[in-house]
Amino acid sequence: MSQVLATQQVTSSPFLRALQGVAQTPVPFWLMRQAGRYLPEYRALRATAGSFLNLCFSPEFAAEVTLQPIRRFDMDAAILFSDILVIPHALGQKLDFVEGEGPRLGELDVTKLVYDADKLSPVYETIRRVRQELAPDKALIGFAGAPWTVACYMVDGQGGGEFTRTKIFAYKNPEAFDALIAKVVDATVAYLAAQVRAGADALQLFDSWSGLLPEPYFTRWVIKPAQEIRSRLAKECPQTPMIGFPRGAGGLCQHYAEQTGFDGIGLDTQVPLDWAVENFGKGRCLQGNLDPVLLLTGGDALEQGVRGILDAVRGQPFIFNLGHGVIKETPPEHVALLAKTIRSHAG
Amino acid sequence: MSQVLATQQVTSSPFLRALQGVAQTPVPFWLMRQAGRYLPEYRALRATAGSFLNLCFSPEFAAEVTLQPIRRFDMDAAILFSDILVIPHALGQKLDFVEGEGPRLGELDVTKLVYDADKLSPVYETIRRVRQELAPDKALIGFAGAPWTVACYMVDGQGGGEFTRTKIFAYKNPEAFDALIAKVVDATVAYLAAQVRAGADALQLFDSWSGLLPEPYFTRWVIKPAQEIRSRLAKECPQTPMIGFPRGAGGLCQHYAEQTGFDGIGLDTQVPLDWAVENFGKGRCLQGNLDPVLLLTGGDALEQGVRGILDAVRGQPFIFNLGHGVIKETPPEHVALLAKTIRSHAG
Repeated sequence: MSQVLATQQVTSSPFLRALQGVAQTPVPFWLMRQAGRYLPEYRALRATAGSFLNLCFSPEFAAEVTLQPIRRFDMDAAILFSDILVIPHALGQKLDFVEGEGPRLGELDVTKLVYDADKLSPVYETIRRVRQELAPDKALIGFAGAPWTVACYMVDGQGGGEFTRTKIFAYKNPEAFDALIAKVVDATVAYLAAQVRAGADALQLFDSWSGLLPEPYFTRWVIKPAQEIRSRLAKECPQTPMIGFPRGAGGLCQHYAEQTGFDGIGLDTQVPLDWAVENFGKGRCLQGNLDPVLLLTGGDALEQGVRGILDAVRGQPFIFNLGHGVIKETPPEHVALLAKTIRSHAG
Repeated sequence: MSQVLATQQVTSSPFLRALQGVAQTPVPFWLMRQAGRYLPEYRALRATAGSFLNLCFSPEFAAEVTLQPIRRFDMDAAILFSDILVIPHALGQKLDFVEGEGPRLGELDVTKLVYDADKLSPVYETIRRVRQELAPDKALIGFAGAPWTVACYMVDGQGGGEFTRTKIFAYKNPEAFDALIAKVVDATVAYLAAQVRAGADALQLFDSWSGLLPEPYFTRWVIKPAQEIRSRLAKECPQTPMIGFPRGAGGLCQHYAEQTGFDGIGLDTQVPLDWAVENFGKGRCLQGNLDPVLLLTGGDALEQGVRGILDAVRGQPFIFNLGHGVIKETPPEHVALLAKTIRSHAG
């Protein structure tokens, strides 16, 4: 490990050290959607504010909600409060969030997409504010949606289904779809590099819908764009570790881990930890993968679930997380119990 | 292979020979939901009939729609037209199918569930009729839902979500949930054995929602009930091969294949064939796993998808299928193209 450390910044953050490949005790943790509707202080602030997109672009609001869960639960990392669909917005596709229904995107004309960096400057201001307030041993995670997942929303125009429209379009017109993916890749690299310049310590690429693509399309539209984003960012910000999260990838998770070059691999609930550790966890940080329904359930089931994961990854560089986002009905006390169980677990 | 064959019935059915572990050329095929709404002759018959449950219990209707796709596309196997929820119905839980919305189940009281075998006798009559009409080289597949999947509907009372209610109940009350699973296991064994006595040549256990359970619950409520059903049926009908389909199981698919003892393993779209063949396909029949959206798309993408699968499983005992059911908007000509592509592929 000493050689790896010599070429990387020395850091006091257990989260970043785990991403450098060094197992930590206690295991660092954060939760996907840790800033959000399950927290009363989020709901209170949300009620006074405007549309969801306005919130993402209000540095004061976004910085505050990014920090809320850290104050309560002392996670090892904060994650920028934002949305993966700011990229289509910055590319000029119309975007609205309909209350209670989710995003609605306007007509897509790939030839007209032009990345307007200025549209995302409030995000960088949020990052600067959060980084200033966070303790030095807490990491700030920037993020973006992976091109395949973002393209799903861009083509379908909304979420909620299996993105069949997108898949038919992509299967029928693979070269045209490549062109869309390429535009999203370029925008994503620019966006993530700017997040790092503003103060993000690590980056996560969320491929929430990678589970919809079989081979050979998984390689073409999940693995290859991730490789390209990773390698271009490795040049622009070589010190910044990156996590890839190919949700639903199943057995393809191994190809993804081996081929993308990410420092950390996010695992969804269905990835068996013993298999992941043995097949692609050697010297690579894994992150995951408690069932969010166990966090919602609480009690013994939650404690056993947390301990089961920690036992399975003993000695492995690991970041504890859920396999998917916090469910909005989750009682905050359950998150406190999760934090306590992790902190008190013997390494 | 000769030893295996010596202890099993000699059959003219390529589908059954593949399940005996012998690679077939051309590869036998059938499609999940091959009898259904994408066929105009199904829709015509459906329009004249009553509620969906009545259809499942009308041997004349059910036998006819079971045979419809075989007449058109000459699949190697017919699958009984029925529904996985006939088991809760036979156990005494109220069941309705609401047009356009799916199943609605009544209050669940596990202590009151009693299996009434007579309620399912129309299903066996359907099987007798279909077997009589099918050519000897065509197999008839009987089926049931796996206990976990059936229990999801029984506890949640309906489908359409992530079965969070069921999971919370099961996580909080694992022993009570064990008791429900045990009742469904008993009913399923009785039901499947009766299907074999009526003429089913093979059986498939559909665990459509196994992808919702992480370890150790996957072993407890997916693998163990499947093991028990398999071993009890192996005593009651030792000549009848059985396929398990753990949809969404991801990396856990390997544990399932190794531990359940099924002759065939159904793979969803997301299982990489190279991984499956190498890790659990040796001497075991695999089945799957074309993306149903490729069948909906048609054309070059469909042909390439079919060929890609057939190339990946060369020399492997294999049954071609989709990774999930036929999508109802699929043009029947696309199924004809799929059939032609499979039949003309050099083994």
